[in-house]
Formats: sequence, C-alpha cells, structure tokens
Amino acid sequence: MMNTNSTSDQLTFGMIGLGTMGRNLLLNMADHGFSVAGYDKNPAQSELLEKAWANDAGESKTVVKGFTDISAFVGSLKSPRAIMMLVPAGPIVDSVVAELLPLLDKGDIIIDGGNSHFTDTMRRDKALEAEGYHFFGMGISGGEEGARRGPSMMPGGDKTAYEFVKPVLNAVAAKVNGDPCVTYIGPGAAGHFVKMVHNGIEYAVMQLIAETYEVLRKGLKMDNAAIGQVFTDWNAGRLQSFLLEVTSDIFKYHEPGETQLLLDSIKDEARAKGTGKWTSQVAMDLVTPIPAIDSAVSMRDLSKYKAWRVQAAGMYGDEIAPLAVDKDAFLASLEQAFFFSMITTYAQGMHLLASASEQYSYDLNLAEITKIWRGGCIIRAAFLETMLSAYQADSSLKHLLLAPAVQAIIQETVPGIRTVVGTAVAAGIAVPTYATSVSYFDAFRSANMPSNLIQAQRDYFGAHTFELIGKEGVFHAQWQGKEATNP
Amino acid sequence: MMNTNSTSDQLTFGMIGLGTMGRNLLLNMADHGFSVAGYDKNPAQSELLEKAWANDAGESKTVVKGFTDISAFVGSLKSPRAIMMLVPAGPIVDSVVAELLPLLDKGDIIIDGGNSHFTDTMRRDKALEAEGYHFFGMGISGGEEGARRGPSMMPGGDKTAYEFVKPVLNAVAAKVNGDPCVTYIGPGAAGHFVKMVHNGIEYAVMQLIAETYEVLRKGLKMDNAAIGQVFTDWNAGRLQSFLLEVTSDIFKYHEPGETQLLLDSIKDEARAKGTGKWTSQVAMDLVTPIPAIDSAVSMRDLSKYKAWRVQAAGMYGDEIAPLAVDKDAFLASLEQAFFFSMITTYAQGMHLLASASEQYSYDLNLAEITKIWRGGCIIRAAFLETMLSAYQADSSLKHLLLAPAVQAIIQETVPGIRTVVGTAVAAGIAVPTYATSVSYFDAFRSANMPSNLIQAQRDYFGAHTFELIGKEGVFHAQWQGKEATNP
Repeated sequence: MMNTNSTSDQLTFGMIGLGTMGRNLLLNMADHGFSVAGYDKNPAQSELLEKAWANDAGESKTVVKGFTDISAFVGSLKSPRAIMMLVPAGPIVDSVVAELLPLLDKGDIIIDGGNSHFTDTMRRDKALEAEGYHFFGMGISGGEEGARRGPSMMPGGDKTAYEFVKPVLNAVAAKVNGDPCVTYIGPGAAGHFVKMVHNGIEYAVMQLIAETYEVLRKGLKMDNAAIGQVFTDWNAGRLQSFLLEVTSDIFKYHEPGETQLLLDSIKDEARAKGTGKWTSQVAMDLVTPIPAIDSAVSMRDLSKYKAWRVQAAGMYGDEIAPLAVDKDAFLASLEQAFFFSMITTYAQGMHLLASASEQYSYDLNLAEITKIWRGGCIIRAAFLETMLSAYQADSSLKHLLLAPAVQAIIQETVPGIRTVVGTAVAAGIAVPTYATSVSYFDAFRSANMPSNLIQAQRDYFGAHTFELIGKEGVFHAQWQGKEATNP
Repeated sequence: MMNTNSTSDQLTFGMIGLGTMGRNLLLNMADHGFSVAGYDKNPAQSELLEKAWANDAGESKTVVKGFTDISAFVGSLKSPRAIMMLVPAGPIVDSVVAELLPLLDKGDIIIDGGNSHFTDTMRRDKALEAEGYHFFGMGISGGEEGARRGPSMMPGGDKTAYEFVKPVLNAVAAKVNGDPCVTYIGPGAAGHFVKMVHNGIEYAVMQLIAETYEVLRKGLKMDNAAIGQVFTDWNAGRLQSFLLEVTSDIFKYHEPGETQLLLDSIKDEARAKGTGKWTSQVAMDLVTPIPAIDSAVSMRDLSKYKAWRVQAAGMYGDEIAPLAVDKDAFLASLEQAFFFSMITTYAQGMHLLASASEQYSYDLNLAEITKIWRGGCIIRAAFLETMLSAYQADSSLKHLLLAPAVQAIIQETVPGIRTVVGTAVAAGIAVPTYATSVSYFDAFRSANMPSNLIQAQRDYFGAHTFELIGKEGVFHAQWQGKEATNP
C-alpha cells in the first residue's frame, strides 16, 4: 500500500481538514513522494493545498489533490485507506467520523491527529474497532513549521494497523541522528495521553520562562535586549531547547517601522486550549503529583482577571525594588534554577506517564517516548539526551529524580533554585512554578513527610482511620480522651 | 408536617444508612423533639440506633424507630415524606434511589446528605424533579460530633421543598449567636458544590498546619510538647479555628500506658476521599485559580510514594540543619504566615464559589454561606467573622483580597510569609502551600503579569493568535522575520 512508485491512480494518504496543520502535513508527505488527497468543505482551503504544492513541487511527479466532496475524496484513496482528521477536538470529530463511516470499508484506518481528550479517544477506539475499523489517536507536536518540515508524532491504537501507516509517518517525522521522531506508543488512547502530557510539560516550561522574564524585568530591571540575550545565551548552553529558542526570537521581533518589541504590546492574558488543564485533572485522578503543571495552569487562569489585578495593584502596590544582588552571580543562580525546575517538571510528566501506563495498560516505553521528543516537538531540549540515557541505563527506572545522572544535575543546581526563590519571594516577585518545583523536591526527598498529622486530623473529625508504623491494620482513636481501637 | 406535637403515629423524618453520621443526626433530631425513623439493611445498625436513643432519651417521649425493611420504613413516615440518605457517594446512591422510588409518592423529598460529586447531584436532581419528586443534595460538615451536637448544613434543590424540611434542619444545626448554621444554598447541585469547596479549603488548611509542624519539627527542632503549645497558643488568638483545636488535642494524645504521642506512630501516607481533588479539577474547568488547594491535593498524593521518598532521602539527604533564627521572632513570623495563607486559601475558595454561581446560575449568597460556616463545620474559624463583615459591607465584593478589612490583615502579615518561605526554602524544608500562597498573592497584585510572553510563544509555535493593548481584534505574527497580520 505504501509503495511510493505505485503507478495506480489511487492516492496513499487522505487528510480531512486543510487548515495550516493539515495542509502542511500533506505537503510534507508529498515531499517524501507520497501522493495524497485532502478534503475540506471550504473550497478555498482545498485550492490553497493544490496551489501550495504547485509552488513547492519542483520536478516532483507526486500528486496532491484537493477535494470538497467527501465521497470523491474517499474514492480517491487506496485500500485499506489511511485517513487522518485534523479538525477541532470535541463533537466535530464525532460528526466527521459519522459522515465518513458509510463511505469506508472494514479495515480502513481513521487517524485523529488533533488534541482530543484521551477519554474521547478511548470511546471512539472501542466503538470503531468493534465495527471493524481501525481508529488511531495520534498526538502531533511541532506546530505549523513542524507539520511542514518534520513533527514529532505519538500514534496509539491497533498495532497491526500502525504497520500500514508507519512508512508515511517515518518519512515525514522529524529526524534526530537519523531516527524518526515517531513510534508506536501503545493501544487505545495511549497516543493522545502522551501528547496531552507533552503539552502539560510545555505549559510548565513556558511558565518558568515567563517567571524568568518577570525576575529579569521587575527584579534586575533589565531591558528587553538584555533579557533576550539571557535567553539566547541559555539556549546556547545546556538549557538548549525549542522554547528558549522561540523566546530568544520573540525578544528580537519588532513589527516593521516599530521601535518597541511586539511583545510589549501583547495583552498579559494567557489563553489555553485545555491540554494543560486536562493533564492536571487526570494526574489528580491517577494520584500523581505534578504541581509544576498545576501551577502553570492556575497562573494562566489568574492572568485572565486583569481588572482585579489592576485593582489589587492599587491596593497593595506592585512596584518591585531593584534586587540587591550581584547580577552575574544571580544570573548564574537563575540558570541553575531554570535547569532544576525544568528537570523536575519533566520528571513529574514522566511520572504521570508511568502511572497512566499502569492504570490503562498502555505498556509505555519511556525511553522510546523520550527519544521521539528529542526532535520536532515543542518540548525538545538538549536535556532529553540525559533523560534518554537514564531510561536506557535502567528500563525499570521508577522516577527520573532517582536516576544517578539526573541526581548529579539536581545536586549541582539546587543552590540556584533556593537563591532565586528566596530572593524573589523576599522582593515580592511572583515565582509560583519555581517555588513549587523546589517544594516538590524537598517533599520528594523527605523520608518522613508531615502527613501523619493529616491522617490524625482526618481520624479526629471524620473517623477516617489511620495506619500505624510497623503494625498491620487500620485504626481509629477516640482523640478526645479515650484510647485507640481497631474498629 | 413538622409539628413536633403531632399526635399522629407517623414519623417526621427518615434516614437511610445508619452509620455513625446517620445515627447521630437522627439522635440530634430526636433531641429536638422530632420523631424519626432509620433504615439500614444491617439489623445491628438499626438496633444500635434504638439502643442509643433509649440511652439518651431521658424523659423524652420522642420516638426513634429502626427498620430493616424499607417498605415498613417508608410507610412509617408522614406525607410528604422527607428521607435523607447517608450512604457512600457513587453508584450506591443511585441504587438506593431506585429501590426507594416505587415506594414514594410524588412530592416526597429525597435528601442526599453524603459527599456526592455535584455533577451526579445535577443529574439526579433533573431526573427526579422531572418525575415529580424533590431531590436535595445537602452537604453536611462537622463529622460524627457535629452530626450529634450540631453540624453545618448546605442544602441545595427546590426552594419550596426546602421549606418543608427547614424546621428540622434549623433545629439540629449548630448555632452561632442563635443563628442556625444552615441556609438554602441554591438550586440544583448548589449545596453539594458548596460543600465540596468547603472540603477543598479544609484540605489546604490541613496542609498548612502540616507544613507548620514540619517547620517547627525539622527546622526549629522543637519537641512535640512545644509544637503542641504553639498550636494551642494560636488557637487562643486570632487564628482560632476548629482545625487548630483538633491539632492541639492531637499533640496531647497518648494511648493509655504509652509515653510517646500516638501521632508519632501514624504512617505519613495521607488518604483522601476525593472532594479536594474534585475542587481542584472543577476550578480548572471554571478558569479559577486555587493553587493552595491544588498544592494540598498534590502533597497528599506525594505522601503515598513512601518507598521512593525513602530512596530519594538516601540519594539527596533529608537532614535539615537547625534554623539560624531568633526563635520568638520566627514564631511570630510563622503566625503571620499561617494567617496570611489561611486567608488567601479562603479567598481562593470563595472565588471558586463566585465562579460556580455564575456558571451554574446558583445565585449564591456568599455572606450567608460564610455565616453558616461559622459553626458546626470543619473550617469554622474566628476569621469567618471578618469575612462575613466584608461580604455584608459589600455584597458585590468580587474577591476577598479586594475587601479593605482583609487588605489590612494581609498587609500586616505579608512580612511573615516572606520570612517563613524564604527561610524554609533556604533550609530545604518543603512548604509548598505556604510558598504557593505568597506567589498567588504576588501575581494577584500584579497589574502586569508576564503572560504576554506566553501568548507570544503560543502564537509563535501554534499560530494561536494574541490580543494587543488598546487595539481591537486578534492578531498573528510571522515571528521568524515577517510582519504581524490580522488573520
């Protein structure tokens, strides 16, 4: 089916939804010699696809066809058909599937390449597999540019069906040392789950960068050029990552004829599509602490209350005195703090993957997931090589902070996070995700947490019982004077 | 119906589920002259109820009857019947309702007094009201003791039906200055929603107490007697609250013949029934930041990974050096820090109530809710009087931190939280909820957050667009070299 030299008129891969992502992914496939079909209700989008390929094709004989009729689109595809949807998550996915099904044959493969909630994917996977179709939930990261030049892809679903689409996916994926940034993630909704957690990590790292900006701007009173330089420098070192590269570019971007950065004109109210929130919500269901991501979600939410914040600034003041620190030494601490918090964030995300793997029987391979995150995706970073080595060295690694290679970095950087959080909190600069990162670590390395007191309180007022050290069973005490009993 | 001098043999109120809470609530009703019926499949529970009343009744002629047959139980009640269920949340509630319905008449009132998820209550309320019954989701706080002597109750549902049960609820509720700690909360699931948020606040305050214990124990190296004294002292001052009173008692409790506190033998793995988690999850859906509660949830979760924590303690060490602080001055800072964080926690919870009121049209009266939390419930505290005054002074108050009376306390206590977080972070003591409280405040009082950078990043890699200050519309920039456009 995936023979790129096929002389048949039928096309190899179909895409529903020809927005920038869908169009770019098809063009990427065509670049690699796969003849493809795109469908969009909007004729303008379908024309745009064909024009874009006319422009990019060069000598290539590869066919890229746009359709506005779904039957003709489906009819143009080789059997078993491989059709990807890139449409907004939610009910639209269901309605596209409903429209598509009567036109398909058993054994065809439907791929949902959007950011669907993994529970929707679970439901669709079950329903469609029961009817004899293959449904794939596939996370795609990399944005427009990634789609065109090489994304990181996280497909989950029936493994045999995966083999059919594998050549196309391998060809279009980003490559790191020749390895494609795509792998079979696991059954059911595993692909969408992993992509969701990827996005959760992304939220937290973006928040850490925003807090860094806050400290540099309000604390060190640096101008944009100097702030941009910090991010550029960081990106040239061990913190190298796509998000720092993006940030570095943002601190250089002026609109034509403007002298101030576009950044300075953008409203400070952050939006969200929901994947970060879902990550936090699911983590709570899976009893897995990911406070860095929770914190990033809550700060996006807080940013939306602009009018209250302005009123509060009037009541409490929001002027920050210049930090009385040695600037170079403090910047060195900040670099450590960022690395420390970035690592604990990835560690929290990976912990959540491990929990989900157990809960949903995804049988996730954390080394392979790390591997495909090294290129194409938003959270790609030099540190992923360290992470990969850690998982390769110990495939039963329980938590990233328990890996010796990570331990060494944490021990080296922990002084920096303590300095930064201490200084920022004293100065009144909000650093919630930095602060939560060090607290998470300090709790994580506590053989004894103070949670015995919480258990005592719960038993006191709610008779919720408690467990005793070195003694089997659950116990309840008559805290107001009587003795402990085993109920 | 609620005539306590009724000569009819029929009983005024029925209870399904005769565990401690259900039994105690019935005995409380009987204390106030209401003849009541209890039903439990387990004959031992039904006998226990009757025996307990025989023991407590004294001269009273009030009837308390236990049933093991549900038809006989229903038949014993006056019409319209008022029947409360106190059974575990989840499918059991549905199966009890299903068992009950064929025995009821239209117009009867079913009250779910457990901790059901508010979305379940929404569903049940709709279904049962459509069939002509009244369904009440009612949060009850106060534990065993509260149920027996006076709980705080949060009923939501049909307002006319509420009038029928009001005399019983008013009679049994805790009283503060003669006012019963119960009020009509709002339609649908409003009662269970408010109770859920009550529990979320409870989680965070418990976590703050646990972190205080951690600082006193590991940082100041105080022994249990001295730690207990701090909580006792606090409870005698402006921090007075049920949870501090509980804690103070816990630091005095030895099992007979034992020299060490029971607390020291309790495992440091905290359990949870889910209401705190639900609060955080729903807050994220309602775009309402409640990071103190999120943090408390994540620390309960982290406490469960004991083996990893022990391993991490071995790798990273968990010995804390004695804090090099003036002890009395530091204790004064800690008292401020606790008050500050307790207030921001309540503020976050109230914000969530305001959001829910809008989203679900609950029309919540935050002053009335504050009023009924002053007695009977787990989060009762002297501070609620200040909170009540703030809502009474300004019924359109948007956020508690914007109230002048609260502002004064925050301004007085903020130095303490900065000292405590700075000191604890430097020393390596985990204080996640203290830290998140000050960060929340610092972000809340920022007229400008660094979220413009997050919007720029989202537009850079995902073309998610942004808004500009002082300019209508949404915009997208070609960050890698081209100009900004209005798509």
